[in-house]
Amino acid sequence: MGATTQRRPVIRLRANAEPQENQPPLFRHDRPDVLAVEEPLEIRVDGEQFSVTMRSPGDDFDLVAGFLVSEGMVFEHDHLVAMRYCSGLDADGHQTYNVIDAVIRADVPRPEHATARQVYTTSSCGLCGAASIEAVTRASQHAIRPPRRTVSYDLLARLPDLLREGQAAFDRTGGVHAAGLFTADGELLCLREDVGRHNAVDKVVGWALREGRLPLDDTVLQVSGRASFELVQKASMAGIPMLAAVSAPSSLAVDLAQTSGLTLVGFSRGTGMNVYAHPERISGLPPKR
Amino acid sequence: MGATTQRRPVIRLRANAEPQENQPPLFRHDRPDVLAVEEPLEIRVDGEQFSVTMRSPGDDFDLVAGFLVSEGMVFEHDHLVAMRYCSGLDADGHQTYNVIDAVIRADVPRPEHATARQVYTTSSCGLCGAASIEAVTRASQHAIRPPRRTVSYDLLARLPDLLREGQAAFDRTGGVHAAGLFTADGELLCLREDVGRHNAVDKVVGWALREGRLPLDDTVLQVSGRASFELVQKASMAGIPMLAAVSAPSSLAVDLAQTSGLTLVGFSRGTGMNVYAHPERISGLPPKR
Repeated sequence: MGATTQRRPVIRLRANAEPQENQPPLFRHDRPDVLAVEEPLEIRVDGEQFSVTMRSPGDDFDLVAGFLVSEGMVFEHDHLVAMRYCSGLDADGHQTYNVIDAVIRADVPRPEHATARQVYTTSSCGLCGAASIEAVTRASQHAIRPPRRTVSYDLLARLPDLLREGQAAFDRTGGVHAAGLFTADGELLCLREDVGRHNAVDKVVGWALREGRLPLDDTVLQVSGRASFELVQKASMAGIPMLAAVSAPSSLAVDLAQTSGLTLVGFSRGTGMNVYAHPERISGLPPKR
Repeated sequence: MGATTQRRPVIRLRANAEPQENQPPLFRHDRPDVLAVEEPLEIRVDGEQFSVTMRSPGDDFDLVAGFLVSEGMVFEHDHLVAMRYCSGLDADGHQTYNVIDAVIRADVPRPEHATARQVYTTSSCGLCGAASIEAVTRASQHAIRPPRRTVSYDLLARLPDLLREGQAAFDRTGGVHAAGLFTADGELLCLREDVGRHNAVDKVVGWALREGRLPLDDTVLQVSGRASFELVQKASMAGIPMLAAVSAPSSLAVDLAQTSGLTLVGFSRGTGMNVYAHPERISGLPPKR
């Protein structure tokens, strides 16, 4: 398995904030820097190329499982019969661990787009925001259920800090996204990191599939960056009822959250947050004035 | 053409930093919020579906042109004969402007992967970082040339501020990436924004193709976020010799920059920066100690 960080030489340049006489205006320091590793992972299904994603090595089986959930290929624990690394050698003859073949149970129906390589390739002319939202909502086998229990505002406000505390790699590289799955009581179930925000979420969802935990009722997914349409879609495919992001959502992310019944929180930064859809799952809110 | 921002209702919650008697611990404000619009764009080549990307509407022809440069489909101004919106109607009967067909000159050779939908789908088993770096280096028709002129450290350090000054949408939504192409003298040639970092770069490259400016010798591309493999690859395909990012690069981004001759700068934040590859294009550096 590849390392998640690697060292590369770097020339570090910093301005001299208060230059004294005989001091340079710019400091130079040549040293090794720790970087987040990014490598391609080729995903095969039943021996056929399905997709390639650039990802942080590690938790690769979780990534593949979650990606297949996001694509609607599998949605139950026993749909995925096996996953294995294909042999692949780099220039020095070392195993690369960058190709995984997933075997799906023969009687699991393949979705229409299964032979294509992207979520949207079956969209016909006339594709539009509304059309793809409908497509996604239909595709999810784990429709988000009405709230059975709520999550308190105070707990939600603490999740970004809890996520950061759990992030092992971030402090070292500054270049890795994180997704953390929490119970409604704030217990961390699974935290995954990746150079790609979507991969971090796929890794969490794949962990849940492999643990037999789908659909993820009564959980909150906290992510480190923005909330795109894609992340809301992935949460929806796994039945996650609440997604909280540290930064902004997009218009389509809000629309899909609204349609699919998902509670969407943005700009969650400890001292406040914005609720964009389905606030009924959050307790402790002041009344609307 | 769709708007680049839209309003959605939001519940804004902020902690009361210094609660006085009779004041609530949490302020609630229900109001409309301005969000970055995200919509799918289906790209067709000669009438055939080629790819779909989630993007900020606007500069769509630039996006398509730049995407085709990144994919190695076209690399000269006259390779792209025409681009046009296909008719597509949303549920209310309005034109969606979310499907574009690009017509490529018949005698332009199609790359091997042209019938596939992703950059990497032709990778065989054995795919690894090194292999895909070689593939990209071979594919670029605009090999990065040895430095003809340098860019000063002082100018490079000002580019993040110049980029932000040029960003129209960022202040309104907080959710949009930017890519700005500058001359070696700091003149802004083209700035594009998008919810997707890769789209912002494609829009800049597409602008250059359509203006007949490829390869982009003696320019610097400043981007708002991190420097992934993908961004270095896109810069390399357009012959851009220098990429500067506000945040961290990945290991593979550094490796590709090293191999393809591109100067890669990360953590560029006004008061300092890290140079990861090919510092010889930057003037005004203190000597190595």
